[in-house]
Amino acid sequence: MGLVVQKYGGSSVSDAAAIKRVARRIVDTKKAGHEVVVVVSAMGDTTDELLDLAKEVSPVPSGRELDMLLTAGERISMAVVAMAISDLGHEALSFTGSQAGVITDSMHGKARIIDVTPSRIRQALDDGAIAIVAGFQGVSQDSKDITTLGRGGSDTTAVALAAALGADVCEIFSDVDGIFTADPRIVPAARRIPRISYEETLEMAACGSKILHLRCVEYARRYGIPIHVRSSFSTLDGTWVSDESKGSDQTDMEHPIISGVAHDRSEAKITVVGVPDKVGEAATIFHAIADAGVNIDMIVQNVSAADTNRTDISFTLPATDGPAGMEALTAVQTAVGFEALRYDDGIGKVSLIGAGMRSHPGVSAKFFGALAEAGVNIEMISTSEIRISVVVRGEDVDTAVGALHRAFDLDAEEVEAVVYGGTGR
Amino acid sequence: MGLVVQKYGGSSVSDAAAIKRVARRIVDTKKAGHEVVVVVSAMGDTTDELLDLAKEVSPVPSGRELDMLLTAGERISMAVVAMAISDLGHEALSFTGSQAGVITDSMHGKARIIDVTPSRIRQALDDGAIAIVAGFQGVSQDSKDITTLGRGGSDTTAVALAAALGADVCEIFSDVDGIFTADPRIVPAARRIPRISYEETLEMAACGSKILHLRCVEYARRYGIPIHVRSSFSTLDGTWVSDESKGSDQTDMEHPIISGVAHDRSEAKITVVGVPDKVGEAATIFHAIADAGVNIDMIVQNVSAADTNRTDISFTLPATDGPAGMEALTAVQTAVGFEALRYDDGIGKVSLIGAGMRSHPGVSAKFFGALAEAGVNIEMISTSEIRISVVVRGEDVDTAVGALHRAFDLDAEEVEAVVYGGTGR
Repeated sequence: MGLVVQKYGGSSVSDAAAIKRVARRIVDTKKAGHEVVVVVSAMGDTTDELLDLAKEVSPVPSGRELDMLLTAGERISMAVVAMAISDLGHEALSFTGSQAGVITDSMHGKARIIDVTPSRIRQALDDGAIAIVAGFQGVSQDSKDITTLGRGGSDTTAVALAAALGADVCEIFSDVDGIFTADPRIVPAARRIPRISYEETLEMAACGSKILHLRCVEYARRYGIPIHVRSSFSTLDGTWVSDESKGSDQTDMEHPIISGVAHDRSEAKITVVGVPDKVGEAATIFHAIADAGVNIDMIVQNVSAADTNRTDISFTLPATDGPAGMEALTAVQTAVGFEALRYDDGIGKVSLIGAGMRSHPGVSAKFFGALAEAGVNIEMISTSEIRISVVVRGEDVDTAVGALHRAFDLDAEEVEAVVYGGTGR
Repeated sequence: MGLVVQKYGGSSVSDAAAIKRVARRIVDTKKAGHEVVVVVSAMGDTTDELLDLAKEVSPVPSGRELDMLLTAGERISMAVVAMAISDLGHEALSFTGSQAGVITDSMHGKARIIDVTPSRIRQALDDGAIAIVAGFQGVSQDSKDITTLGRGGSDTTAVALAAALGADVCEIFSDVDGIFTADPRIVPAARRIPRISYEETLEMAACGSKILHLRCVEYARRYGIPIHVRSSFSTLDGTWVSDESKGSDQTDMEHPIISGVAHDRSEAKITVVGVPDKVGEAATIFHAIADAGVNIDMIVQNVSAADTNRTDISFTLPATDGPAGMEALTAVQTAVGFEALRYDDGIGKVSLIGAGMRSHPGVSAKFFGALAEAGVNIEMISTSEIRISVVVRGEDVDTAVGALHRAFDLDAEEVEAVVYGGTGR
């Protein structure tokens, strides 16, 4: 008997049939003796349809009103999920983000959770009901306006509620079976990772793995909430994300050195050409970028050419922020005195992640050896204690991912069957 | 400069184009120097679509969850209306029923308003913004659950806010030009009524006029809020509903004796045949009906037949309540000892309404004379101080309405042009 928070994404509640299937799964969890809190996203394409409607009346709708509009999506799905559960003979009560006590700041469209005060959820559980909560939304502390949490918002809602309620686990359901050693569409031999640390999951999320959002993993790590990433189409175990140093049933000896290979095609590279090599020029450049609200990822500065005393600075950023970044730099061109800007969105980032590389020398050598052997040219390099990332040409990403996956013995002995729609095996 | 509450129904906000038109109209009112509060219904068929979705997962969805689901409809329309206004350069803030301070009891699906505490609306107006409020919804005082107000709920929201804010007028916009002396689809010569009392409007609503709901008019009368019923497709004056005794610019002398002719095809008649004529039998019958939650309208009891000492009791009720009524009566047949039940849904009710009939004798004579001349047979009669209603065969309704309209000189000298989509004439 424990408290389980489950989160179902939009594809798991895409229509009435899907909602009924999810309801049965929720009821099964309840019948197994658990208290159950369920966080739901909007049904299927609802959010996109609401966005389209907004754009029909206003090219740049106000953030407050857009949040009011979009939160209708979860309101619909949570009520219908609650009805489907009631229809199975179990009590279910739905709650908006505001009713669930999800208190945020006032940044419409990307609000941060400040506090979670789930007294109504606790009461519903005490009354024997299943609580259904709208994901992705909250209410601002100052103005009491409805807010949305932005990307990864529903997963974050689930983890935040799990933390506030002292849940035993937060189960994140989607249409994939868990976190894999690489994207199975690129590497057919990729294996599901049964257990992984918060730290490694954070690195994978930061490096382009789409399964869990950085923000949700950060929240889970801070509060020590184990996340179980699993498929809503099967009852198989998925991937457990937790702090393995605290009481995992696996010893470190058994833990593989490398967890997986991640890739990301969503970044672009800006090169600032001919920057005068004097103190403060780089600071001016990166201040301009930061002021435009753009996050940069990797940075490389060439050794200054002796004859010109000028250098090139390259950095990567989300391609969606590309225009804003270029605009911000153009505005400081005269002040900085650089020669030109180059923009390149034909790049890809490939990363090797593994907590084990901390204590195992030779990982870098094998990494670069494998890429060289595969004929992949490297444009930029960045490393952390548990990660090596390189920027390569976009068309080399698949080759690089496959080569690294093989080199670090991640390939499955047999290709693991990915079971959809089944109930066990 | 005054405070205007406007209410736009579903047909006025059916799509993005309609919403933009409504937004221009709202902005025009604001530009004319008024403070503006707008109550909106759900867009077009949204409510029906949400009901269909609910039925797909549960044949009898819980009232709490159904209210949570349906209120998503107004949430969408109010946010989009607010965006459309912002796009015209005016600040607009949307508020849910709960945020607007619409406090109700806990009767999901047909909640009654207990209190309205519109402090956030007042603040928005003080800040120079236009406030957009979701109609049809509130929050229950006890459980803080979302409720819906049932039929006529959006109009009632508008009048209740107008009362709480001390508005100068509550404008109810729909796709008709106002209240007419009869349904123009039946009587082409029907005229728009420029002014009418609350009392007469209540009688018309109770007698089948669909323009304003009884509940909304009752609320307006209690708080003395003038209602202006008008078309969202034109800028013409519609019908002013107010307490004419208090400072109308029309004298009583000018007020016509008769306001209009209403009709209603939505009722059915139940006849309880052979009821023993002793004290308390009628009470048992009507108790049974009341316990089934059915409201009855007109009642006729025949003179008891001397030989059998039995009588027939007929009454009308909403046809939708017919099955419940028949079931309740069947359950008491043995106890009461009546002989049979007859059910007839082929009836119609025709009513003549006019505050002037109080002081003008001869209205009844002319009423029954006109129907006799038109060959309309009368099955039941009921009267109030300002109304005469009769039940006739359904197929005689049109004839009866036309005959009364002519007999009481309500026909327009020229047929008034009903202008749709224009902005003036």
